[in-house]
Amino acid sequence: MRIAIIGTGLIGGSFGMALKAAQFEGELFAVGRNQANLSRALERGLVDRYETEYASLEEADVVLIAVPMLAVPAVLKSIEPHLSEHCIVTDAGSVKGSFVRDVKIHLTRLNRVVPGHPVAGSERSGVESGFAELYRGRRVLLTPIEQTDSDALETVTSLWTQTGAVVESMSVERHDHVLAATSHLPHMLAFGMVDSLFQFDDKDNILKYAAGGFRDFTRIAGSDPIMWRDICMTNSEALVGVMDQLLHDFHGLRDAIKDGDSVRIEQTFRNARRIRETYVDTIE
Amino acid sequence: MRIAIIGTGLIGGSFGMALKAAQFEGELFAVGRNQANLSRALERGLVDRYETEYASLEEADVVLIAVPMLAVPAVLKSIEPHLSEHCIVTDAGSVKGSFVRDVKIHLTRLNRVVPGHPVAGSERSGVESGFAELYRGRRVLLTPIEQTDSDALETVTSLWTQTGAVVESMSVERHDHVLAATSHLPHMLAFGMVDSLFQFDDKDNILKYAAGGFRDFTRIAGSDPIMWRDICMTNSEALVGVMDQLLHDFHGLRDAIKDGDSVRIEQTFRNARRIRETYVDTIE
Repeated sequence: MRIAIIGTGLIGGSFGMALKAAQFEGELFAVGRNQANLSRALERGLVDRYETEYASLEEADVVLIAVPMLAVPAVLKSIEPHLSEHCIVTDAGSVKGSFVRDVKIHLTRLNRVVPGHPVAGSERSGVESGFAELYRGRRVLLTPIEQTDSDALETVTSLWTQTGAVVESMSVERHDHVLAATSHLPHMLAFGMVDSLFQFDDKDNILKYAAGGFRDFTRIAGSDPIMWRDICMTNSEALVGVMDQLLHDFHGLRDAIKDGDSVRIEQTFRNARRIRETYVDTIE
Repeated sequence: MRIAIIGTGLIGGSFGMALKAAQFEGELFAVGRNQANLSRALERGLVDRYETEYASLEEADVVLIAVPMLAVPAVLKSIEPHLSEHCIVTDAGSVKGSFVRDVKIHLTRLNRVVPGHPVAGSERSGVESGFAELYRGRRVLLTPIEQTDSDALETVTSLWTQTGAVVESMSVERHDHVLAATSHLPHMLAFGMVDSLFQFDDKDNILKYAAGGFRDFTRIAGSDPIMWRDICMTNSEALVGVMDQLLHDFHGLRDAIKDGDSVRIEQTFRNARRIRETYVDTIE
């Protein structure tokens, strides 16, 4: 089996390294236009070789697209003429509705399309950031469409399983709603809070005295701005929905504090602690 | 020197353990009414002995009050009749304006009062949670009032320095504003987000698929509800101020996402990443 990887950042690079670490018995090659990146990807052992022409995709059995989401349409346009009839096209984007819209416009063989999303990452990005253990024990969510062939779904499931991930399938719509709430919303809060604090007059001292919780809380505000801009642009409906809910609830908490409503404040905090202990401590 | 500790939870307990680990040459005793807690504090080595009568404070040179902030007035009322003329009264509460208001009502010798706040903690609480290293390298902020004697300030500074902390002084007002922004606000967001997510229909799945960032982000939502209720009740003015700023800015980000304003979105994220890298990575 020959796998082509388009995008050698954290996600694509770690996919290649994890497969190689698992003694994957096929060939991995990177395809792209940025010679310096590709050369570095080869040096770091992300892939076995690299190609700078999309025509090289003719020999690929699987193509993994791991680029920022707004770059996906241009990639699909470039690769479509070179794909063999059986070649599976999968991706690793954080929003699945957008990928499905894009493939419906730019690809002809929708039966070979397997949208996917590894729920793993870090605030690091770029060709130096990949590592073989990124997916170990993490979830990969596949969102097959109506046309997806079952053998294509099985192949992609098997590849991610070899990286150490736990693979599950769900609908595109459910994926985008769940991720808006659990991943996109916390990122918006972290980015938003850091940006907001910087507007205070006393900002140097505020940041100097930032306590421990603040550090953990804002770690994700160091994430790649382009990747997150694209998530906002492609999952705006679900994301705005959960932001509105949070804004509403947070305004309620603000009012309770303003009014000195100690019962309501304590109840909110008790709920949160109980929920966190019940659910979140069992994750990972 | 004899030090009395009122409150043997994370903050008071760690204070005692840290002093003992630093070969403190005085005596540490706990004073309170909860016999089971006091007995456990002695077993764990938080203090050298314990007393259940406030009359025992007559021999104390320093009293550290480390109880939830709404419990402070009752403690002050109980201890006032038993304090010697030279006895220093200090505390470890997260809001200093409230402590200063309370001592002005309940104590007569304001020259012996040294309000303090160790900016350290964890989501754990209770007599089992203290540990000797909690304050190592962390900041302790002292907010002396107009009446505070300089020898009292020096004594409290010296004690906290022995726990491994870095001691700084600032005004009560500045303390409460800076902490509202850097500690109280992130806690409100963490509590608020967890509570908000639980109101979705799809809550089981939302929490099941919570990604890595969510875990760090919500760690502080496991914090003690009573302690945080009291912080909200006693620092409401500063806290509501920073919450209003955050609500305003977050609504702006929401509008940018709703409108598909990619330039503004990207700018917000770039700002946040730059600020975080510039300031937060140098903390701790």
